[in-house]
Amino acid sequence: MPAPQEFIDYVDKSTGVFIQRLKEAVEIPSVSGDASRRPDVIRMANWINDQLKAVGVTTRLADLGMQEIEGQTLPLPPAVLGRIGNDKNKKTILVYGHFDVQPAFKSDGWDTEPFKLVIDGVTGRLIGRGASDDKGPVLGWINVLQWHHENKKELPVNIVCCFEGMEESGSEGLDELVQRESQPGGWFDGVDAVCISDNYWLNTRTPALTYGLRGLSYYRVTVSGPGRDLHSGVFGRTVFEPMTDLISIMSRLVDNRGNILIPGIQDQCSIADDKEKKIYAGLDYSIHDVEEAAGGNIALSSDKVEVLMGRMRNPSLSLHGIEGAFSGVGAKTVIPAKVSGKFSIRLVPPQTPESVDPLVVEYIEEQFKTLNTKSKLEIECLHGGKPWVTDHNHWNFEAAKRATLAIPDLTREGGSIPVTLTFAESLGVNVLLLPMGRGDDGAHSTNEKIDKTNYIEGTKLLGTYLYEVAA
Amino acid sequence: MPAPQEFIDYVDKSTGVFIQRLKEAVEIPSVSGDASRRPDVIRMANWINDQLKAVGVTTRLADLGMQEIEGQTLPLPPAVLGRIGNDKNKKTILVYGHFDVQPAFKSDGWDTEPFKLVIDGVTGRLIGRGASDDKGPVLGWINVLQWHHENKKELPVNIVCCFEGMEESGSEGLDELVQRESQPGGWFDGVDAVCISDNYWLNTRTPALTYGLRGLSYYRVTVSGPGRDLHSGVFGRTVFEPMTDLISIMSRLVDNRGNILIPGIQDQCSIADDKEKKIYAGLDYSIHDVEEAAGGNIALSSDKVEVLMGRMRNPSLSLHGIEGAFSGVGAKTVIPAKVSGKFSIRLVPPQTPESVDPLVVEYIEEQFKTLNTKSKLEIECLHGGKPWVTDHNHWNFEAAKRATLAIPDLTREGGSIPVTLTFAESLGVNVLLLPMGRGDDGAHSTNEKIDKTNYIEGTKLLGTYLYEVAA
Repeated sequence: MPAPQEFIDYVDKSTGVFIQRLKEAVEIPSVSGDASRRPDVIRMANWINDQLKAVGVTTRLADLGMQEIEGQTLPLPPAVLGRIGNDKNKKTILVYGHFDVQPAFKSDGWDTEPFKLVIDGVTGRLIGRGASDDKGPVLGWINVLQWHHENKKELPVNIVCCFEGMEESGSEGLDELVQRESQPGGWFDGVDAVCISDNYWLNTRTPALTYGLRGLSYYRVTVSGPGRDLHSGVFGRTVFEPMTDLISIMSRLVDNRGNILIPGIQDQCSIADDKEKKIYAGLDYSIHDVEEAAGGNIALSSDKVEVLMGRMRNPSLSLHGIEGAFSGVGAKTVIPAKVSGKFSIRLVPPQTPESVDPLVVEYIEEQFKTLNTKSKLEIECLHGGKPWVTDHNHWNFEAAKRATLAIPDLTREGGSIPVTLTFAESLGVNVLLLPMGRGDDGAHSTNEKIDKTNYIEGTKLLGTYLYEVAA
Repeated sequence: MPAPQEFIDYVDKSTGVFIQRLKEAVEIPSVSGDASRRPDVIRMANWINDQLKAVGVTTRLADLGMQEIEGQTLPLPPAVLGRIGNDKNKKTILVYGHFDVQPAFKSDGWDTEPFKLVIDGVTGRLIGRGASDDKGPVLGWINVLQWHHENKKELPVNIVCCFEGMEESGSEGLDELVQRESQPGGWFDGVDAVCISDNYWLNTRTPALTYGLRGLSYYRVTVSGPGRDLHSGVFGRTVFEPMTDLISIMSRLVDNRGNILIPGIQDQCSIADDKEKKIYAGLDYSIHDVEEAAGGNIALSSDKVEVLMGRMRNPSLSLHGIEGAFSGVGAKTVIPAKVSGKFSIRLVPPQTPESVDPLVVEYIEEQFKTLNTKSKLEIECLHGGKPWVTDHNHWNFEAAKRATLAIPDLTREGGSIPVTLTFAESLGVNVLLLPMGRGDDGAHSTNEKIDKTNYIEGTKLLGTYLYEVAA
């Protein structure tokens, strides 16, 4: 059934209140990957908890234990679990989101302070770290609940919430929690379907429903030798330099067309047949879209199907950077003593970190041997998540299709939300990805934003989905 | 003639005062390469100026004009010029040093605060940024003058000082000053020889006199494409990634044996004959020395002559790092939009930046073309300096040999002090490099130090040299 018109009207009327809520959330710099920000992530968990309680949700802060990070032992931020409604005649929907964010510094190239929500009156953009990934969507659910709570309206479904604070850092501790709470008598027991709003439209026009995600395996390759950083005048051409060896290794991982040079990795994936290619051909997407979103005429191909397959159904390897080398402005004549190259591989079914990691480690060790160097090598798999694909004709997806005003793109996402698979496997139910933001939102990038339209219409969409899925 | 015994005794007695002087100097973080530290470099210039005036030197702060750095226009720190004595029957010696330092943060891996002088009571090390490079030696000259001033002793030579604050950033503005002041009537007019104390012994045992320096050409290679940093999940394998192209280019510059892969660069240098090789064979130096100084068993060869030639008479290419890529701890899944690889080449005669730069630019442009990428390339030559070799049998060197207690190593240095050549060419006189610190001092590195013995005995050496050169 459609959502009540009063709900739709209420959302339109409450734009200011909802933006104020997002503003407060963005101002808490809940960066999970930065040890010094851990208190802010925990503060954010408590803020979300308070917001949920204020709209009538029964909550619990779930302790996830401790974590080793940057040589310190720190408490993981708790997951915020919520429950509202317990009617056995209604479906129970689990909604997931995360309240932690990627690192952001103004000096990265932001036009505004990343942890202040800036409202661009001309474009209607709400700019700030986490606005789209994933605070906006999490607050979307709270916005929906606010109407029901204030107006004493019964929800069409029972809702179980799971909001975590470690998504940007491998969702540490969450798998165990989900598995535990999925057991009989657990917090998630009785869930009929899952809805996750933590990804993006393919373009900037067309809502999307997403039925696939790539997995991820993230690597750190460390090359070391000298006991400390050396002066390149004094030591240049007298010793093995770790940077030379590391750069050599990094240059052997991927070519600039995106082909992964590590043997066996592409071979693990199927070859797309004509039927599959037709799906990509049918999506509302053009090379112009990818280049507009990327901000440059840099598409790997002029063939839209090729480009979409690169994102949706092929593995990819990106070089992210080097830790320990000179990264500042200016001209420092240093031979860095210890340098760590960072790269990651996006995985597609049937790949898993477990199937890919040994190939990566073996290849790098083998290549390193050919360097015949006195430098030392260490390879670490920092974190990983399996890829996921589900049935997009399930009633969970059909409800979302009805809730969407336009005909949505059915997409597979290039990114990773590892918990998707954990929910699917632990609960044995269908998982729907229902994105709120657009393809150009700049998640993980500078000037991250969510369009006001997406935040407000997205709130309506989440509410309407609950009514449609109840039918 | 030898220095007076009272001078030697005074230096021994004044150890505490001299260390206090170094302590004050180290506490001023005069980092010339960091725009935000520019006021500290200027403060340092004034501190040196005050110190010189206090020991009877007539001084002048020489304005060097403005500089563009990190998008700002900043005043260059003034050079401090000094003059004491004007006796036409005496030789006039120009002494040069610099009071700016390399960047240093405790987080780089320092065991102590870099801008606090820490005295290690066990090893006798004086630890702090600039202790050896080059504040210790500059203060050595001031220590010498202090005895003469306090005791109203006439100096055996006229002294002209030139202390600058931009040495670690290409000595910007100094060439013009030296050329101008070398003209008739200029501050440096009438100088008979130059003494520079700004390099290091070959080992930790044997004083050295240095008659050669490598030059330097520093490059920044920037590859760009996307309009902003991208999420590797969303864009991985859909666009050309600047990091992939940059790493590919950086991997083609040098092999891990130190061989420069850019055609024509090694060919510019002569091949060492047996006579030249004998010089290196005779130096008090072992593979153990280089590995001890480097802190690892990483020498390129077990042949000492090979290793010494790598440092002293062959060009070298070191990869320093990447600006704009992910350089933090943790796992950020970013495709950086614009990345700048930094590397430099140490030059030997007859190479010059002018002869090397076109080969570098042409090679990189050519290699970049073979990548057939949509990324964009920019190559900048950030700064450069010519190499230098002089006659080590000149009376200036003979005086230094007599002033040195042991038989000194006659060395060529792997580093660059571009102003050496400027003095040699502008004044047409012999230039002597008279190092104070040891080969393991860690200039440009973490935990930079000067041994107390070197600072104190080095002060005696500088004073004694003035008496010997007067003879």
